[in-house]
Amino acid sequence: MDTIPELTIDVQVMFFDTDCAGVVHNIAYLRHIETARTHLAEILGWRLVEMANTGLYPVVVRTEIDYKRPARLGDVMRVRGFLEEVERSRFWCGFEISRATDNRLLVTCRQSLALVQMPEGRAVRLPPEWRERWSKKVRVRESTT
Amino acid sequence: MDTIPELTIDVQVMFFDTDCAGVVHNIAYLRHIETARTHLAEILGWRLVEMANTGLYPVVVRTEIDYKRPARLGDVMRVRGFLEEVERSRFWCGFEISRATDNRLLVTCRQSLALVQMPEGRAVRLPPEWRERWSKKVRVRESTT
Amino acid sequence: MDTIPELTIDVQVMFFDTDCAGVVHNIAYLRHIETARTHLAEILGWRLVEMANTGLYPVVVRTEIDYKRPARLGDVMRVRGFLEEVERSRFWCGFEISRATDNRLLVTCRQSLALVQMPEGRAVRLPPEWRERWSKKVRVRESTT
Amino acid sequence: MDTIPELTIDVQVMFFDTDCAGVVHNIAYLRHIETARTHLAEILGWRLVEMANTGLYPVVVRTEIDYKRPARLGDVMRVRGFLEEVERSRFWCGFEISRATDNRLLVTCRQSLALVQMPEGRAVRLPPEWRERWSKKVRVRESTT
Repeated sequence: MDTIPELTIDVQVMFFDTDCAGVVHNIAYLRHIETARTHLAEILGWRLVEMANTGLYPVVVRTEIDYKRPARLGDVMRVRGFLEEVERSRFWCGFEISRATDNRLLVTCRQSLALVQMPEGRAVRLPPEWRERWSKKVRVRESTT
Repeated sequence: MDTIPELTIDVQVMFFDTDCAGVVHNIAYLRHIETARTHLAEILGWRLVEMANTGLYPVVVRTEIDYKRPARLGDVMRVRGFLEEVERSRFWCGFEISRATDNRLLVTCRQSLALVQMPEGRAVRLPPEWRERWSKKVRVRESTT
Repeated sequence: MDTIPELTIDVQVMFFDTDCAGVVHNIAYLRHIETARTHLAEILGWRLVEMANTGLYPVVVRTEIDYKRPARLGDVMRVRGFLEEVERSRFWCGFEISRATDNRLLVTCRQSLALVQMPEGRAVRLPPEWRERWSKKVRVRESTT
Repeated sequence: MDTIPELTIDVQVMFFDTDCAGVVHNIAYLRHIETARTHLAEILGWRLVEMANTGLYPVVVRTEIDYKRPARLGDVMRVRGFLEEVERSRFWCGFEISRATDNRLLVTCRQSLALVQMPEGRAVRLPPEWRERWSKKVRVRESTT
C-alpha cells in the first residue's frame, strides 16, 4: 500500500521574501508553499510539462494560512507538504513551515484544489484511482462541501 | 456615529498578475488585497509613514481566501475592503473582489491582524477607542480566540 | 502631428514593495514600470484584452535600469513612461521614477520590446505606420542592432 | 591563488514564474538571479544573517538584462553567477541563465552593486583585500565610472 504522499523542501530566506518590518512578508510564504505543492503534485502524478501541454491544471480554490512566528533574512525555512483529504472533485493539501535551525513552527496552511481544464475553466473529476489508492491513508469524502 | 470603515479600489490585471494557465495567479490577488487593506488602515488611523517611523505594524496572523471565478488579462478587479470584527488585540478585515464590467464575484477573503511592535515582535493591545468607536457597527468581542 | 506618446502614473509604496533593508526592493520598481508600460501600450494602440485574444504580445528583450535613490514605505512614486525610439521590429521605451513629494529622481530605466506572436514565439514586424506617425518625435532607425 | 568566485543553481519554473503569454515573465528571472547573487555574496564573505545584524548591505545600482529565449513551465533554469569586475566602491556580477535540458542560453545579465550602510544609506568602500584577492582573475579598476 502506498504511503501518504508528502515531501519537504528547504528554502533560504532571500531579500525579496522580506519587507521593511524586518521579517518575511506574509505573501512570500505562499510562493514557497506553491513550490512544495508543485513537487507534491508531481509525486501525485501531475507533471508540470504535461500540464502545460494538456491545459489540465490543479487550481487553488481555497487557502487558509496561519502565521505563528516570523522568519528572517538568512533563516532556512523547512516547508513540509502532504496530501490531507480527497473528495470527488477536490483535494486538500496541508503545509507546515518551520525554521530549520530550531524546528520552531512558523506557519501552518491548508489549500483545497480542483482539477480544471483550461482555457474553458471547466472542473474535471479527480481520477477515481486516487480514492482507492490513498483511502487508507488520508480522509476520503463522498461529497464536496 | 462613525460609519463602518470601508473602501473600494479598482486594479487592472497586468501580465505579472497572470500565470500560464491564462488567468490571474492565486497569490496575485493577495497583493491587491494588501493594497486595499493598507488604505483601509489609513482610514483607521495608521499611516504608512508613521509605521515606518514607530515600528508599530499591523501584522497578518491569518488569511482565509476563496477563489470563485478567475480574472483575466485586461479585466478591472474591484477590491472592496471593510472592518469586520474587533477583538482585544486582533481585528478582522473582510474583502470582496469582483469584476468591474459585470459585477461577478471573483474572490472573497478574511484576514485577522494583530498590532506588533517591531523589531521585538511584541504584540500590542488595540487602542480601546476602537471598540467604542465601531461597537455599533462591527462585531466586538471581549476575548481573542 | 501626434505628440510623443507618454504617460505618468502615481503608485504608493506598499509593504510588499519593500525589503528588510528598509527600502523598496530593486525588483519591485520593475513591476510599476510594467504597469506604466502597459498603459503606454494602450496609448500606442495595443489593448490588453486584444493581446489575450490574438496572442500577439509586446515582449521585453532588454532592460537597463539605474537605481539612484531609494523609495521608502509610504512614499508616492511617480512613474513616467514614454516612447523613445522605433526600429523595424523593436521599439524602446524610457522610464523615470521620482518621489512625488520632492521630485527627486529615484530610478531611470530603458526597455527594448519586440512584437511576438505566441505561442509560436515568432517575431512580428512593427506596424509601418508607427515609423511614419512618430518619425518627427522619436528616433527612428532602419535596422535593428 | 583564489579561483574566480562563481556558482550555479538550478531552479524549476513554477506557475508563479510564468504569465499568460505562456512563458516565464521577464521580472521573474531577476528573482532567481538574486538568489544566485546572494549565494555568490556568501562565497565573497557576506553572510545574510550578518547583513541583517550589521545593516551593511550590497545594493544593486544598475541591472542590464537581455532576454534571448523564453523558459516555460517545468523547464529547469540553470543560473550561473560570477564576479566580473571590482572597482573601488562598486563591483559587477555577471549571470547566464540556460535551459538545463539542452543548454540553450535564455538570459544574460550584469549587475553593479555598491556596499551601503543602512538605514543611513551611506556608501561604504569595498574591502581593499578584494582588489588584491581577485586582481589576477577579474578586471580591477581604480575609479568608479
